[in-house]
Amino acid sequence: MIPKNNVNPDCLNNRDELHESCGVFGIYSNDDIDAVRLTYYGLYALQHRGQQSCGIAVSQDGHITGHKGIGLVPEVFTEKVLDRLEGRITVGHTRYSTTGGASMEDCQPLIIRYKEGQLAIAHNGNLINASKIRLDFENRGAIFQTSTDSEVIANLISRFGLKYKNFEEVLIETTKNLLGSYAVVIMTKKKLAGIRDPWGLRPLSIGKIDNSYILTSETCALDTIGAEFVRDVEPGEIVIIEEGILKSIKTNQKKPHSLCIFEHIYFARPDSFIDGASIYQSRLEAGKLLAIQHPVEADLVAGVPDSGITAAIGFARQSKIPYGEVLIKNRYVGRTFIQPNQKIREESINIKLNTLKKEVEGKRIVIIDDSIVRGTTTKKIVRMLKEAGAKEVHVRISSPPVKFPCYFGIDIATKEYLIAANNSVEEIKEIIGADSIGFLSVENLLKCPIGAPKDSFCTACLTGKYPMKVPSGLDETLEDK
Amino acid sequence: MIPKNNVNPDCLNNRDELHESCGVFGIYSNDDIDAVRLTYYGLYALQHRGQQSCGIAVSQDGHITGHKGIGLVPEVFTEKVLDRLEGRITVGHTRYSTTGGASMEDCQPLIIRYKEGQLAIAHNGNLINASKIRLDFENRGAIFQTSTDSEVIANLISRFGLKYKNFEEVLIETTKNLLGSYAVVIMTKKKLAGIRDPWGLRPLSIGKIDNSYILTSETCALDTIGAEFVRDVEPGEIVIIEEGILKSIKTNQKKPHSLCIFEHIYFARPDSFIDGASIYQSRLEAGKLLAIQHPVEADLVAGVPDSGITAAIGFARQSKIPYGEVLIKNRYVGRTFIQPNQKIREESINIKLNTLKKEVEGKRIVIIDDSIVRGTTTKKIVRMLKEAGAKEVHVRISSPPVKFPCYFGIDIATKEYLIAANNSVEEIKEIIGADSIGFLSVENLLKCPIGAPKDSFCTACLTGKYPMKVPSGLDETLEDK
Amino acid sequence: MIPKNNVNPDCLNNRDELHESCGVFGIYSNDDIDAVRLTYYGLYALQHRGQQSCGIAVSQDGHITGHKGIGLVPEVFTEKVLDRLEGRITVGHTRYSTTGGASMEDCQPLIIRYKEGQLAIAHNGNLINASKIRLDFENRGAIFQTSTDSEVIANLISRFGLKYKNFEEVLIETTKNLLGSYAVVIMTKKKLAGIRDPWGLRPLSIGKIDNSYILTSETCALDTIGAEFVRDVEPGEIVIIEEGILKSIKTNQKKPHSLCIFEHIYFARPDSFIDGASIYQSRLEAGKLLAIQHPVEADLVAGVPDSGITAAIGFARQSKIPYGEVLIKNRYVGRTFIQPNQKIREESINIKLNTLKKEVEGKRIVIIDDSIVRGTTTKKIVRMLKEAGAKEVHVRISSPPVKFPCYFGIDIATKEYLIAANNSVEEIKEIIGADSIGFLSVENLLKCPIGAPKDSFCTACLTGKYPMKVPSGLDETLEDK
Amino acid sequence: MIPKNNVNPDCLNNRDELHESCGVFGIYSNDDIDAVRLTYYGLYALQHRGQQSCGIAVSQDGHITGHKGIGLVPEVFTEKVLDRLEGRITVGHTRYSTTGGASMEDCQPLIIRYKEGQLAIAHNGNLINASKIRLDFENRGAIFQTSTDSEVIANLISRFGLKYKNFEEVLIETTKNLLGSYAVVIMTKKKLAGIRDPWGLRPLSIGKIDNSYILTSETCALDTIGAEFVRDVEPGEIVIIEEGILKSIKTNQKKPHSLCIFEHIYFARPDSFIDGASIYQSRLEAGKLLAIQHPVEADLVAGVPDSGITAAIGFARQSKIPYGEVLIKNRYVGRTFIQPNQKIREESINIKLNTLKKEVEGKRIVIIDDSIVRGTTTKKIVRMLKEAGAKEVHVRISSPPVKFPCYFGIDIATKEYLIAANNSVEEIKEIIGADSIGFLSVENLLKCPIGAPKDSFCTACLTGKYPMKVPSGLDETLEDK
Repeated sequence: MIPKNNVNPDCLNNRDELHESCGVFGIYSNDDIDAVRLTYYGLYALQHRGQQSCGIAVSQDGHITGHKGIGLVPEVFTEKVLDRLEGRITVGHTRYSTTGGASMEDCQPLIIRYKEGQLAIAHNGNLINASKIRLDFENRGAIFQTSTDSEVIANLISRFGLKYKNFEEVLIETTKNLLGSYAVVIMTKKKLAGIRDPWGLRPLSIGKIDNSYILTSETCALDTIGAEFVRDVEPGEIVIIEEGILKSIKTNQKKPHSLCIFEHIYFARPDSFIDGASIYQSRLEAGKLLAIQHPVEADLVAGVPDSGITAAIGFARQSKIPYGEVLIKNRYVGRTFIQPNQKIREESINIKLNTLKKEVEGKRIVIIDDSIVRGTTTKKIVRMLKEAGAKEVHVRISSPPVKFPCYFGIDIATKEYLIAANNSVEEIKEIIGADSIGFLSVENLLKCPIGAPKDSFCTACLTGKYPMKVPSGLDETLEDK
Repeated sequence: MIPKNNVNPDCLNNRDELHESCGVFGIYSNDDIDAVRLTYYGLYALQHRGQQSCGIAVSQDGHITGHKGIGLVPEVFTEKVLDRLEGRITVGHTRYSTTGGASMEDCQPLIIRYKEGQLAIAHNGNLINASKIRLDFENRGAIFQTSTDSEVIANLISRFGLKYKNFEEVLIETTKNLLGSYAVVIMTKKKLAGIRDPWGLRPLSIGKIDNSYILTSETCALDTIGAEFVRDVEPGEIVIIEEGILKSIKTNQKKPHSLCIFEHIYFARPDSFIDGASIYQSRLEAGKLLAIQHPVEADLVAGVPDSGITAAIGFARQSKIPYGEVLIKNRYVGRTFIQPNQKIREESINIKLNTLKKEVEGKRIVIIDDSIVRGTTTKKIVRMLKEAGAKEVHVRISSPPVKFPCYFGIDIATKEYLIAANNSVEEIKEIIGADSIGFLSVENLLKCPIGAPKDSFCTACLTGKYPMKVPSGLDETLEDK
Repeated sequence: MIPKNNVNPDCLNNRDELHESCGVFGIYSNDDIDAVRLTYYGLYALQHRGQQSCGIAVSQDGHITGHKGIGLVPEVFTEKVLDRLEGRITVGHTRYSTTGGASMEDCQPLIIRYKEGQLAIAHNGNLINASKIRLDFENRGAIFQTSTDSEVIANLISRFGLKYKNFEEVLIETTKNLLGSYAVVIMTKKKLAGIRDPWGLRPLSIGKIDNSYILTSETCALDTIGAEFVRDVEPGEIVIIEEGILKSIKTNQKKPHSLCIFEHIYFARPDSFIDGASIYQSRLEAGKLLAIQHPVEADLVAGVPDSGITAAIGFARQSKIPYGEVLIKNRYVGRTFIQPNQKIREESINIKLNTLKKEVEGKRIVIIDDSIVRGTTTKKIVRMLKEAGAKEVHVRISSPPVKFPCYFGIDIATKEYLIAANNSVEEIKEIIGADSIGFLSVENLLKCPIGAPKDSFCTACLTGKYPMKVPSGLDETLEDK
Repeated sequence: MIPKNNVNPDCLNNRDELHESCGVFGIYSNDDIDAVRLTYYGLYALQHRGQQSCGIAVSQDGHITGHKGIGLVPEVFTEKVLDRLEGRITVGHTRYSTTGGASMEDCQPLIIRYKEGQLAIAHNGNLINASKIRLDFENRGAIFQTSTDSEVIANLISRFGLKYKNFEEVLIETTKNLLGSYAVVIMTKKKLAGIRDPWGLRPLSIGKIDNSYILTSETCALDTIGAEFVRDVEPGEIVIIEEGILKSIKTNQKKPHSLCIFEHIYFARPDSFIDGASIYQSRLEAGKLLAIQHPVEADLVAGVPDSGITAAIGFARQSKIPYGEVLIKNRYVGRTFIQPNQKIREESINIKLNTLKKEVEGKRIVIIDDSIVRGTTTKKIVRMLKEAGAKEVHVRISSPPVKFPCYFGIDIATKEYLIAANNSVEEIKEIIGADSIGFLSVENLLKCPIGAPKDSFCTACLTGKYPMKVPSGLDETLEDK
């Protein structure tokens, strides 16, 4: 789906500048396990990938039914709802968080009926040819009810279902028509399938509990439900679980492996592993390399909670500067929190963050964050630290400047809001009021995901090198939405 | 849409045996009127046609947007929601009430995007060839996300939109393909259209406030919002309001006028007029003719609240037997009401109805209801009256026995539940425990809608004479849903 | 409790001028009956006496616990809440409806802890010496947390509990100190008690299911739960049910029996019996006497739904003028209904009432209502009927003009809003625009409750003859609240 | 109030063994500030002290009114509610979190009416003579409606209000009768007062925005709303703000300063300062001293999130063992989260915590937590780390063993659940399965709050030395509740 440039008040993270992807999940149960409840816990573990809405589809009594709604997993699913759903095959989805535009229509999984029966689809990513496909379909008379890519994919499956009897072939033909990023989990009444785009832009993993299979955006969901990790779905691979057997189809569309590097920088949960690399270790390594690349004399290294903590630990280890904390975050946030109005002096009110004055006073502070998008939060943090008595504030960012729009699922659609697209590093330093600033280089960043295949990342938003040709005018298309 | 055979605990009416149709509404505003709020009040006036869910679509800032949800009009629409919606063209819908199966997907109006832009559709009725059309579309690759007829109609419009540039022609071609009952209100960003099926099975009226046009299932909604009645949409007519002008298209598909007689018997609000006839007057007349057809010596005539009241007044006037009340109904019902469990002796608990003992004691009572479907409520009422001391209980029904399934929108899908399909009048009398029973004849019933065209009614559920050929196997199709 | 002069938008009745009393209920179960659920249905049957809030207290596991909240009975009590409550002794309450001022603190039953343990109290009525007692207590150091009379009574019980060991004596002494109207249901962990004031201003009845006792404001709640009526609690009587036995205490404070005549005119449900008289029959009789007292030549007699219906039937029977309906009421109302704003032409929008034009056109109509308080609704109805084509509109009111404030529970605190306190009958006719008007005389009204003791009614609001000396300055006290 | 021994599923902290105190807050505004909204943000900053319920009272139009409810601050207060409240003097409260027993009655602030007018009271702490005072009052006829100490205090104020005209004297006399811990904020229509018990067991601070005064349990709330810290209320001090002036009354009841040491260990937010000491610094110091007292050879020091993090940083700094993270916590928790049922293998499901395998594998881990109460969470964490491949797991606790019940506000009422009350340190090590364990000594703990007065802490739960004589049988009283 196409994220919009909205501010997210609900984000548990203080950085309101970059939006998450979605999370997908699915179970094919061969055992006496409670597939629906495990999906609930699995989605709960993928909540960080999307807080706007969520849903579960299940194959029940020969039909695919389900429940979805606006809100967090524990808000949307009550005991009563979970009790009503039962079945052996499930598909689940968490959608990224945004203000206002939460529409029921766009909640996933999408459940459709077509010639071959019923389908449920959950998608993470962004198809850059979705508009084109929609137009093609509309030109042939089709109607669309949502703005999701899942609906586009469902239409393709339905169309190829006319030509190819075999579900495998249908999925293969479908993927041939998809351009962009996609990690998709699909179910029919009797089958569960997972698809990862040929570039492997979005993650998708396979797990097992006894003889039951699990598909999940991240491995942390496997740990949460007590499942063992089997392997990642490979870029360009389709897996179909049917009659208890997992079958792998390697489409011959494989492209240069290009996992979104922001999964490592920010999106994924630190306890997840993607394509063999530990997210946590990757962030720790980024901090270490940052310390080598941009050394500074200082008294304390601290991270912006929570996104900069791990890199800060790495930076401290490498630099031998003591690690500590300088900011405390109020974690009690929710969808109904009331923002300060104009009468309350906004500049002096720090609802979510507070400084630890004793730790900061008189010290030279290195403050680490994982990335800068607009720069407003970083600027506010620098000011808060200075006001708390910091002698110097050195900003270190464990990723390179974000300069280019992303068309594959990150919410950075237009350049105008990107501080690094419009300012030099020196200018950024001035804008945010830091004593020094340092970004991790692309070269160093790519060293961080230890264990992942070499050069297997998409760094388009940092380098402008897109893994595939992006249709001209896409920017406009996005804004038109 | 296809109603299901569910019991409705929320129905404000005590007769849980027959389900309502839906209500449709739309405004094309040429003046400075608050079209969205007026739609809210319009739907509120059509609430009796559907209590399960409701929705409003509006053309706003060049887009069609809207809000819909499960529940009554005042539950689904808050001040906050109404404040968010604004525009000059609206379409609204109330859906009939049922237990459990209230699905978000099936809420209307349906808003879709197709080649020509956006559409919102609200439908009242039942297409008997919907399954066939769906199958045709599915065979050509289309997907379906709801079980509504609106989605079928939207697909037809989209397909004919490829061939015919003119919206008029598109709608004409679309109606050529529809078989069954339909009163449809459709909007594009700049147009509002109303369509009534060639048999005129479901009602649809045109109203005006100053220069603004209103389309509505029933005229009571016009009174509610202070609009004047203009005329009924004719069977087989399409009206399109565009640039402030209402244009009428008479398709050459006109069929024998066949308004569902149950609109007069039960569905419509008594203060509505359909095809020139007052619903109230029609029910009064039914009572009078019933008194002539089935006279009885008695001390008191009373109606089952609320459905039998008007006919009872008519019966009393004709028979000269005093009119009175014998049953009091608790009107505080809602969706969350908790039904008695097994521990509570169900047979002795009368949650919603109570007898007026002093009125009943020692008297010969004529109790009037508008129809009998399953017979369970009537049976219970007869027992209550006897227990309250009635000397005799004479049941009079202001419509003929319901013996045949309806395929055009009434929830009487299978014969097995129809007491009159399986029992003689004498047997019914025995089952319900009455001292005598009398049904209004079809002949007399057709005399009731004073002012309506002669012989302009569908009496299929009473006579088995369907206005169109019903596809064989439709019963099964319905049950399969 | 002291009702305030608020407009009630939620009232299912169209007459927004007069407010209801409260409803009280209690069960002492000696059998295996589900006392909590039966209390739920009992309160549901008493919902018409109060729609603002409700609550149930229950003696459970040696404690008195409960649940109460703002809203209708089905809104406040969910399955989950009912499942949590279990016990053999219960007290329930429904509080009258008002706008805005719904406060959690004032929900009843009030559950308190005092020297002797716990108590739960539910009260219907209004103590005119409540302020004085509060002041006395406050002067001795007591604190108050609510504005209910129940808290005043609880304080008295607690105080007398120090002096008298016997619960009977405590209640007797307590009642000696109460001035005004009260029908009270009280429970301790092991006892259930009912108290009715010496004037019998508010109703209170005793019922039975097998060996279990029920106390209720109205007998309709007994019918609803399948209980038999035993007798009314007498004015000045205290009943205590303990160890399965009902004990009656006749305090020697008995005063002239003075049931609030408005219970017959408007408050009570027609299927209830109070002090031996059927409410329904009483209203029917009022209509008959009205026809004798104020005859008129007319074509149709109709009642304002729902409050005037029964009297209209009586009027028609007596006058031989045909009975009919002229107004249809939309029954789908709820607490969340959005009132029309200024942009919508209020004068032309009739949200809740609509006329039956065919019935009204060209006719001389007698329209009956049970009372006139402010006169605004009556005025609107007369205008609507005239606009619908009525040749003449004759207003007949089945009670005398309301001219004096009530201090015993009806919401008519100040004279300034009473149309009849400030205008002659002739002037009222002019104000409301009727062709003629007629009120039932006090003399005739008192003939209506057939079976009730002679002259056993309070008619203070009609005659200014208060059953007890009302403290001077009470008006001010009320307004100060 | 008296906390109960319940498990709290909603606690954002993983340690479900120890419950928080409450938070109190108040504003006396002399400026044009939005006192109600600032109270909202102040309470939000005190949310960690209580998640069960919250409330705000405000002096508005000559009355004290307010709003309170079950739930978090953003759940209980909507824009609509905040808009309705307006005034210059406020009192706010957050109540600690528990399962089930969330009762409306016990929500604070308590608003009462007494001889002198109205009062609102919010209390943090536990009166050990509350039962005795209640009994005294009950013996004189008083009734109680809640189980809060606030109601006890209100009764005392009301009673002394009869004897002393001066509000100061009333409060002084009231405090003479209170035994136990209390930080109280009280308002009348025109005054705001703060009281701290003579031992200073619970914190209470004074802040200012321009000329407006703020009272708050913790200074973090001052930072949140942009107020400056003025000073702590002293033990035994009463402050009254009236006509814009703050007046201090030092009661001559001052006792040995005894701030609850658990405010430093766990309760208070790290960015708060109490009695001159930084909570954060105190926890950091505890970690350092722990490293000196219980050194161990290891590869990594980590804290249990979030309660052990700061001490772990201190331990790492002192020990020179690298600091890192080993556990990731899912922060999306809420009141509606559904716990795993029995069918789901509980032992293998880790809903809220997950290990960072790469960090743990093959390493000797020092895991720090701030305290052990029951020991179940610590046991689970040790097992998780071992399963993740830890070579050794050394548990270090930055406080001494909790061996004695607390009567002043911490939820450790009975010894039987305290692992350290019933087991030696060696036995605890065995039970939790650690390779070694070490608790900080009381001596060292008391060195941590740098800047606080020497020996100014209550360590009763650790040492059994209670600051005041605890009534015998209190244990039973508590359990009886």
